[in-house]
Amino acid sequence: MTVNFGDSRRMTVTLEKGSVGIVETKYFTFAHPPDGLNLESGKTIGPITVAYETYGRLAPKKDNVILIVHALSGEAHVAGKNSPDDKKLGWWDEMVGPGRAFDTTKYFVVCSNCLGGCKGTTGPSSVNPATERPYGMSFPVITIEDMVRVQAALVDHLGIERLLTVVGGSMGGMQALQWAVSFPNRVRSVIPIASTPRLTAQGIAFNAVGRNAIVSDPNWNGGDYYGKDVPAKGLSIARMVGHITYLSDESMHAKFGRELRNADDYKYELEAEFEVESYLNHQGESFVRRFDANSYLYITKAMDYFDLAGKYGSLTNAFKDVLARFLVIAYSTDWLYPTYQSKEIVQALMNLNKEVTFCEIQSRHGHDAFLLEWEALTRIIRSYLAEVYNDHSDE
Amino acid sequence: MTVNFGDSRRMTVTLEKGSVGIVETKYFTFAHPPDGLNLESGKTIGPITVAYETYGRLAPKKDNVILIVHALSGEAHVAGKNSPDDKKLGWWDEMVGPGRAFDTTKYFVVCSNCLGGCKGTTGPSSVNPATERPYGMSFPVITIEDMVRVQAALVDHLGIERLLTVVGGSMGGMQALQWAVSFPNRVRSVIPIASTPRLTAQGIAFNAVGRNAIVSDPNWNGGDYYGKDVPAKGLSIARMVGHITYLSDESMHAKFGRELRNADDYKYELEAEFEVESYLNHQGESFVRRFDANSYLYITKAMDYFDLAGKYGSLTNAFKDVLARFLVIAYSTDWLYPTYQSKEIVQALMNLNKEVTFCEIQSRHGHDAFLLEWEALTRIIRSYLAEVYNDHSDE
Repeated sequence: MTVNFGDSRRMTVTLEKGSVGIVETKYFTFAHPPDGLNLESGKTIGPITVAYETYGRLAPKKDNVILIVHALSGEAHVAGKNSPDDKKLGWWDEMVGPGRAFDTTKYFVVCSNCLGGCKGTTGPSSVNPATERPYGMSFPVITIEDMVRVQAALVDHLGIERLLTVVGGSMGGMQALQWAVSFPNRVRSVIPIASTPRLTAQGIAFNAVGRNAIVSDPNWNGGDYYGKDVPAKGLSIARMVGHITYLSDESMHAKFGRELRNADDYKYELEAEFEVESYLNHQGESFVRRFDANSYLYITKAMDYFDLAGKYGSLTNAFKDVLARFLVIAYSTDWLYPTYQSKEIVQALMNLNKEVTFCEIQSRHGHDAFLLEWEALTRIIRSYLAEVYNDHSDE
Repeated sequence: MTVNFGDSRRMTVTLEKGSVGIVETKYFTFAHPPDGLNLESGKTIGPITVAYETYGRLAPKKDNVILIVHALSGEAHVAGKNSPDDKKLGWWDEMVGPGRAFDTTKYFVVCSNCLGGCKGTTGPSSVNPATERPYGMSFPVITIEDMVRVQAALVDHLGIERLLTVVGGSMGGMQALQWAVSFPNRVRSVIPIASTPRLTAQGIAFNAVGRNAIVSDPNWNGGDYYGKDVPAKGLSIARMVGHITYLSDESMHAKFGRELRNADDYKYELEAEFEVESYLNHQGESFVRRFDANSYLYITKAMDYFDLAGKYGSLTNAFKDVLARFLVIAYSTDWLYPTYQSKEIVQALMNLNKEVTFCEIQSRHGHDAFLLEWEALTRIIRSYLAEVYNDHSDE
């Protein structure tokens, strides 16, 4: 297991930053009834609409495609703005654009909202055409493999045979791994970041607490709350728990310590007084405005289910037919997807003599580092992608 | 910082085990109105009833007294049974009894339920004599120092001037530290186990999530739920979150891994399927039967407030007048009260040339190790206590 920074280690990196500007979210619908899409559960769903965005231009040889896959609460809108008035940039804006890690002057970048999501792709909040009502709990349980098969349908729709890379952090990394396993001929490299081949028992436990908080909220109402009051308190608590696990003890100490919000001394009341409490409250409340509680249930369940070793007998067996090369990136203070899990991926690939590069980035930002520390990630990924793109030996 | 196992390291320890048998919970009431007890907040409360148990016999010189102080969900009933039919032993039974770490043939052991608790000592579920209704949210916010002052009143009541030791894990350790600071002349040694001089931002955050879950439960009803449906779902979620933090990733993996509860394969339904989920659900549900939600709010708040460095300017300043010797014990996989925090206590005491022994016990059981691994704790504490007891230089 060697840390390979590629060329970037030996050169002074000047990031030529640039925004992708205004982007439009597009939609693609497939799997129309009666066939629909067969899911891993044995159930069928359709039609499926996929919300996606693209950045840059597809090369004539269609060999410059980067598929970005998002984490639990992500969406298709990865960079730029959807309108000039948009106050928020895409969730990984610093990584996508001219001169950035995913350089849109070179690469054609695609990102779609995952199956089960609530940002334009079919999920439990979507209207089921058969009933003309939102799916709610009638939405089938989905898996990471199902998400990846929907992405493959999108890639087909775009007329793309083979991807230069599939890259994502956290649950995005699970999907990247699944791409390499499900479609060995269609992906030249995968970059799982802060990810894992299976959730730990602790990870499942935290997800279970979040789901419990949602279904305990009376407004959840068996998942049938659309057009009514949403289970805001339950979803907020789920997000608060999740958010703690995305940070590190160290980063929380640095960011909040034991600072009080509005006073020099204790109020001796039960209300939230510490900065960290009001920060978490804010995180919970703002999440409720942008995310659907049922999507939270389904997507966390898909994460719990993901287990390459369990499904294929062993991790080595799961990877035995992969053709992609791997760049595996972990963060030193990530305790939700700890480095030892990334090393399990690396070890299995090394057992098979597959091409793998591993890098543990020293960071104090815990699991969230992949969304916060784009400099180190840019250096590593930019040179890695250039190598893969310019190496035609696997074509 | 040296690990001092005392004599126990060089001898084969044969634990002469023995139960304390049947014990009776006793009650002591003080701080009668109009005076009451002045709290750190400036408010007053009274009368205060304290539930306590004692084990062993008070020596004629009254020099053999061990005060055990409990953690968040503990109680006075530390060992033995309250009746022959009692199905459950006290919470630290393996540590208290003839031949055990706190050897009741030698020592007189006292344990009381903390102020704000729900196991016999005055807390938010107690009836306020002035209104003849449960306090609920009219109960004043309390602190670790308030808890310790109530214990001191109990010790007075028992006619004891000076304690051989004050020992406790987690929040019990906070109280042990506070004893050394508040009553330097009344305590010969303190043994904070898996404890801290202040909660981390992460610890405050987890407590805040638990409190949020409770007050978000409609049954909580502003704390006024006595005689009605209790906020069971909220308290259960609070306990689930807490419980995850008491275990380690390693122990959860060893105990549950990704085992399914009742099947060989996934059900593709949203219900709890993994062993770790049903374990957490069970922990939550059984906690609701034995603990009061309002007590959870008040006691976690007291833990959040505890901050010796913040209160006294620095940890060194907090400890400058202590006369007790310290045995500080931490556990290697405790991430809620990590070892580095115990070392901060040790460092401050060393700066002051105070007598301190530090021991990090290798364990995979996380924070809960102090309740689960009594062998190592017994070896260390038994020899340490014998040393303190037999050393009369500080008398």
